Amino acid sequence: MRIVLDAMGSDNYPDPEVHAAVEASRTLDLEILLVGNEKMLRPRLEELKAGDLPIHLVHAPQVLEMTDKPARTARKKADNSMAVGMDLLKNGEAEAFVTAGNTGGAMANALFRLGRIRGVKRPALSAILPVVGGRAVLLDVGANVDCKPIFLLQFALMGAAYAQITLGVDNPRIGLLSNGEEPGKGNELVKETFPLLTGSGLNFIGNMEPKELYGGHADVVVTDGFTGNILVKTSEAVAKLMTDILRQELTSSFKIKIGALLSKPAFTTLKKMIDPREVGAAPLLGIDGLVFVGHGRSDAHALVSAIRLASQAVASNLLASVKESIQAKMSTLATSQDDE
Amino acid sequence: MRIVLDAMGSDNYPDPEVHAAVEASRTLDLEILLVGNEKMLRPRLEELKAGDLPIHLVHAPQVLEMTDKPARTARKKADNSMAVGMDLLKNGEAEAFVTAGNTGGAMANALFRLGRIRGVKRPALSAILPVVGGRAVLLDVGANVDCKPIFLLQFALMGAAYAQITLGVDNPRIGLLSNGEEPGKGNELVKETFPLLTGSGLNFIGNMEPKELYGGHADVVVTDGFTGNILVKTSEAVAKLMTDILRQELTSSFKIKIGALLSKPAFTTLKKMIDPREVGAAPLLGIDGLVFVGHGRSDAHALVSAIRLASQAVASNLLASVKESIQAKMSTLATSQDDE
Repeated sequence: MRIVLDAMGSDNYPDPEVHAAVEASRTLDLEILLVGNEKMLRPRLEELKAGDLPIHLVHAPQVLEMTDKPARTARKKADNSMAVGMDLLKNGEAEAFVTAGNTGGAMANALFRLGRIRGVKRPALSAILPVVGGRAVLLDVGANVDCKPIFLLQFALMGAAYAQITLGVDNPRIGLLSNGEEPGKGNELVKETFPLLTGSGLNFIGNMEPKELYGGHADVVVTDGFTGNILVKTSEAVAKLMTDILRQELTSSFKIKIGALLSKPAFTTLKKMIDPREVGAAPLLGIDGLVFVGHGRSDAHALVSAIRLASQAVASNLLASVKESIQAKMSTLATSQDDE
Repeated sequence: MRIVLDAMGSDNYPDPEVHAAVEASRTLDLEILLVGNEKMLRPRLEELKAGDLPIHLVHAPQVLEMTDKPARTARKKADNSMAVGMDLLKNGEAEAFVTAGNTGGAMANALFRLGRIRGVKRPALSAILPVVGGRAVLLDVGANVDCKPIFLLQFALMGAAYAQITLGVDNPRIGLLSNGEEPGKGNELVKETFPLLTGSGLNFIGNMEPKELYGGHADVVVTDGFTGNILVKTSEAVAKLMTDILRQELTSSFKIKIGALLSKPAFTTLKKMIDPREVGAAPLLGIDGLVFVGHGRSDAHALVSAIRLASQAVASNLLASVKESIQAKMSTLATSQDDE
């Protein structure tokens, strides 16, 4: 199996990427195509004595920066590392692509290079959240800030296929994020999406508030990309605020310090559970290719997790599942649904 | 000062309300008008030997239940405890109204009985969140699930007036909740609201992600009622998930148990900080009267906090401030802004 790793994606590129390439190619059964500026990458690889590892350098002279306008650069910076890397995927030289770069840039490049799966209105970005009793998939978490009901129906279809593979559940329970559980609650988008999900043939269990999401009531929860993005970022912010307060409090007196020391294993478990590095990356569901986007702050550990996730998706044929699910459903839906 | 307390609001009515009336009238310098079913309330007050306290029973035969459709019952159940209580406010027999009942019901009754402040397009529900270095006001958190840019501008004006009084800041920093800090980020609503806030004369500091909100970068953050509601509920859900995990972990071995015992004061501080009971209630900003709505799960302690908050709002003349702020601004705005 060959996985492309964008060497110029993370905030601190290319060091995290180079270290991740070395570790992943050492510990996982796969080859890495490391795409980026050769002059920066080769000396670093030599320094790490990576000569015998299955890492292949692919030169890409340009970098897509955080400040670049995604849609424009996808066209203008044709030699940016994402574009070059995705072309490898398109040409069948690799099975999945991993980047810690700009999500908008990844989406623009993916749309331009790989395109959408036939029938997909809008690709979506998903996140895997820790919930009571396991994990849940939330989508969209940022690719589409303004959505139509049909987009959310498709998110549910794609999310279900992803959950089957990633969470290993046969008939994933689908929830619709809303400001109340009762049918009829929600904004216009939610109210119009509800009947589509009811008639979708999916295991739709209804509207769902964040407490049911985190309570583990569903395997997949769908929402628009604005709300989903706010939900994920709120979760991170609250988790950080709470750990910061606890840390501050736990160093406030000698007795408490001793207590903190003794109870440290508990905090390690908690930290691991809420650490986005443990999941590593999210796939762009709906793109005709396996593209995984990780956090800009990713370190080597996070990138290795992302590569592992991508390799699992390849092994379990995620792309074919998503295609099948979308195409089976969309062909039965009235063609009267309006598009973009 | 006279405060109306809806005796039939909370999930466990009327016991929390009766206890709160007793405690508030004992410890705060005010009178309570307790509105609800007299037959239920009188024996309970007698049991608590509340005869000498400044609590006045006002009979209301009907109860607005959680399952009632707000708009319909505001009209049909004309003698529900919220309606009767708000009429007291309207007739000048009290200065503020507090309920732990259905938010939609409170809003419908308030619109029907008290009406909007002149110039206000949509009243909003606000929340006070614990943030680094203090507290911040977030609105709307549920009254308007679908919003227009002009609503958000008004939320900012009303939120600023509320923050001046509640947080004691002179020139509150206003943030616009978005999925990225850069101007230009956001969904359509955010993008169209941004220039209105820039030209508002308010201390607008730009788009803001949840991490800046919780990081204490702003005093007031505005968003639509759907997103705001999801943000607040996500915060509660994550806080609960984290404390549950910690509690579980902290009882997992003897050594850790001892540690937990020693570090308990730290958890007490944390719990108090994230406990919604400490704030108690949120005002319906934009209603022509001071109406505070608390959580359905409110206990007596939460209701006393709510009553205290309401009395502070009366003392500092919140209603007049909001009116002044809205009317000064709206008269300078083009009348071309579309309405509902």
